Amino acid sequence: MKEKIKETYLKLKSESGSHSPSIETLLEIIGESTLKHDFCFLSNPLATGIFKSELDDLIKDKLKWNRTVEAYPPQNRAIASYLSQVLKVNQENIIIGNGAVEIIQMVLHKYVKENIMIILPTFSPYYEYLNDTIRIEYFHLKKENDFQLNTGELISQCRDKGIKNLVLINPNNPTGTYMPRKEVLNLFSELKELDNIIIDESFIDFAYEGEFEANLSTVNHIKDYPNVILVKSMSKDFGIAGIRCGYGIMNKEKVDELLETGYLWNISGLGSFFFKTLSRPDFIEKYKKVKVEYLKTTIKFFENLIKIGNTHSNKIRVYPSNANFILIEGLNGITSEYLTINLLAEHGLYVRDCNDKIGLEGDFIRVAARTQKENEYFLNSLNSLLL
Amino acid sequence: MKEKIKETYLKLKSESGSHSPSIETLLEIIGESTLKHDFCFLSNPLATGIFKSELDDLIKDKLKWNRTVEAYPPQNRAIASYLSQVLKVNQENIIIGNGAVEIIQMVLHKYVKENIMIILPTFSPYYEYLNDTIRIEYFHLKKENDFQLNTGELISQCRDKGIKNLVLINPNNPTGTYMPRKEVLNLFSELKELDNIIIDESFIDFAYEGEFEANLSTVNHIKDYPNVILVKSMSKDFGIAGIRCGYGIMNKEKVDELLETGYLWNISGLGSFFFKTLSRPDFIEKYKKVKVEYLKTTIKFFENLIKIGNTHSNKIRVYPSNANFILIEGLNGITSEYLTINLLAEHGLYVRDCNDKIGLEGDFIRVAARTQKENEYFLNSLNSLLL
Repeated sequence: MKEKIKETYLKLKSESGSHSPSIETLLEIIGESTLKHDFCFLSNPLATGIFKSELDDLIKDKLKWNRTVEAYPPQNRAIASYLSQVLKVNQENIIIGNGAVEIIQMVLHKYVKENIMIILPTFSPYYEYLNDTIRIEYFHLKKENDFQLNTGELISQCRDKGIKNLVLINPNNPTGTYMPRKEVLNLFSELKELDNIIIDESFIDFAYEGEFEANLSTVNHIKDYPNVILVKSMSKDFGIAGIRCGYGIMNKEKVDELLETGYLWNISGLGSFFFKTLSRPDFIEKYKKVKVEYLKTTIKFFENLIKIGNTHSNKIRVYPSNANFILIEGLNGITSEYLTINLLAEHGLYVRDCNDKIGLEGDFIRVAARTQKENEYFLNSLNSLLL
Repeated sequence: MKEKIKETYLKLKSESGSHSPSIETLLEIIGESTLKHDFCFLSNPLATGIFKSELDDLIKDKLKWNRTVEAYPPQNRAIASYLSQVLKVNQENIIIGNGAVEIIQMVLHKYVKENIMIILPTFSPYYEYLNDTIRIEYFHLKKENDFQLNTGELISQCRDKGIKNLVLINPNNPTGTYMPRKEVLNLFSELKELDNIIIDESFIDFAYEGEFEANLSTVNHIKDYPNVILVKSMSKDFGIAGIRCGYGIMNKEKVDELLETGYLWNISGLGSFFFKTLSRPDFIEKYKKVKVEYLKTTIKFFENLIKIGNTHSNKIRVYPSNANFILIEGLNGITSEYLTINLLAEHGLYVRDCNDKIGLEGDFIRVAARTQKENEYFLNSLNSLLL
């Protein structure tokens, strides 16, 4: 059985390129009973619950539900107007994406010319989706420094190498390292000569600076930096990857130009319903509660993982994280494949084997934070695996 | 009241560019009670019903429904493998789109260079989404000939003008004119020297050549013509525009190249569920039944519209159609705006005012076929408007 799961997993993994096979694809082959919890996908499961309850109400309203399935959804700008109220950003600076990855794709294809600086390890579409002709310069985060970014060094490398485009993910995926907003704004100010700075804040809601409800995003500062493009996924903080919702904030000229030649009906009826729901203050209040609850659970989970790491410091190392996922490195012959396959086959836990992540040397797995109960199950499983 | 509806409609129309405002956007302003039936959107409402019933089952299965919302859907190639069985087309020649319009967009942006021949009137994204640098040549269908395409003339114009790319929509939108498959294949053979022939068959299921169940598509011939790209929407025949599903069939090199730099997770959980459902033979059987039922209803509806046209030949002209929509031209001072606004304000009927369609000179509205009951209501409303 274990051998079969191993074989299946390795086959699927090799077919999925630099991403994990989707849970649906995985389940089709290994069967529902094998998998207990998905620690690969990086979302707040409590938030999924509050949106699902809104969906239940929609489905009960036969006329509206029928229209959600049957009719063309509102156009991009109409949906941007719902979001404009929530973010307090002008509608003309917002473009809605079929997932954040569509924003990444459109911006890389249309605006990145000549060269780009990518900080490694990173989310792979940032280099995979580039046109052939673009020169890529990599800036390496070092595990010896817990993957912390040295911004002074980054700025001087950008200047020395004549860099035109830069990608910042904050908190960074897959390292979970975080830069305070002040430092990010400082980078924006220092790098005004760049064509584009792409700041991806898809995990910003999971960062924590001592106050659970603080808004750490740079979203309301983008207007001051015409070369900055903010990318945001809704899949993670709202736990709705299946709905495909994301957005970009950028200068009006770019939004106009992109919408002139595409992206008119790129949001589904459910996606449009999500953005409309988001514009209701009572929904935001509910969301904030589950966000704080999830953050508290996550912080505790990571503390416990670090404890396990300290107990088994000859077998694994657990890195600090300021997001909702954490890197664990296998040491002394414990490979990432060993950890991934054993967690799956013996405990039904799906984690992200990072052995395909360029710029991440060593045997890393990435583990998401889930509900308290699921996290406890994970801690016990990992403990028993290391005994 | 009527004045207010008129004013609202005209404002929304001007904001929606060359497309109609979505029904959701329209309803937000004019209110649910004003609108009875949507004759603007071109879908088979019976098909929506059979998919909705599948959706009901999905929603009852809590685990699967939760996963549809929460988890990342399968990747593009995994979904293409479901469709491959249905179409009997190799998976490697299929790319799945977030609506057919995403296929149009990706193909125009990536593969259309130098120039393109567009047959007018047409679906506007075919010229709107083109890069700035592309020279557009228009080939005009003439209302005097009931908008029938003269293929000999088209071929010689393509040759005379050194055309590299051609768009064919069959049946054509908004004219409803149809070319038999044999004639389309002849065009493919004659125009092998073109870089790309885009054949959009989004309405092919509504065409009728004397046998209700005949497959009139060229889909199984695309492999013989490496320069042909087939575009297909699922929104029309399956009545699911809100789910955003479409696909493209093209040579393997193009599919590989497109997927290398994007479109990995462009389908939602519901979209993936739709394609999976489509691969079930029992679902296809159900669909075929409602397709035939809808075709019969549609043919009768159009016959009745043509009768009304003949009765009021000083006021309107109704053009023949071989799709699920039909063009009506207002004559002698009856404008398309007059028809649109009066149908909406007095009868709650939403139709497509074609006054923004380039290459359609005159006062045209486009009317979709709906259920028998809705069609009858439409016929009575139009009759009373013309009295």
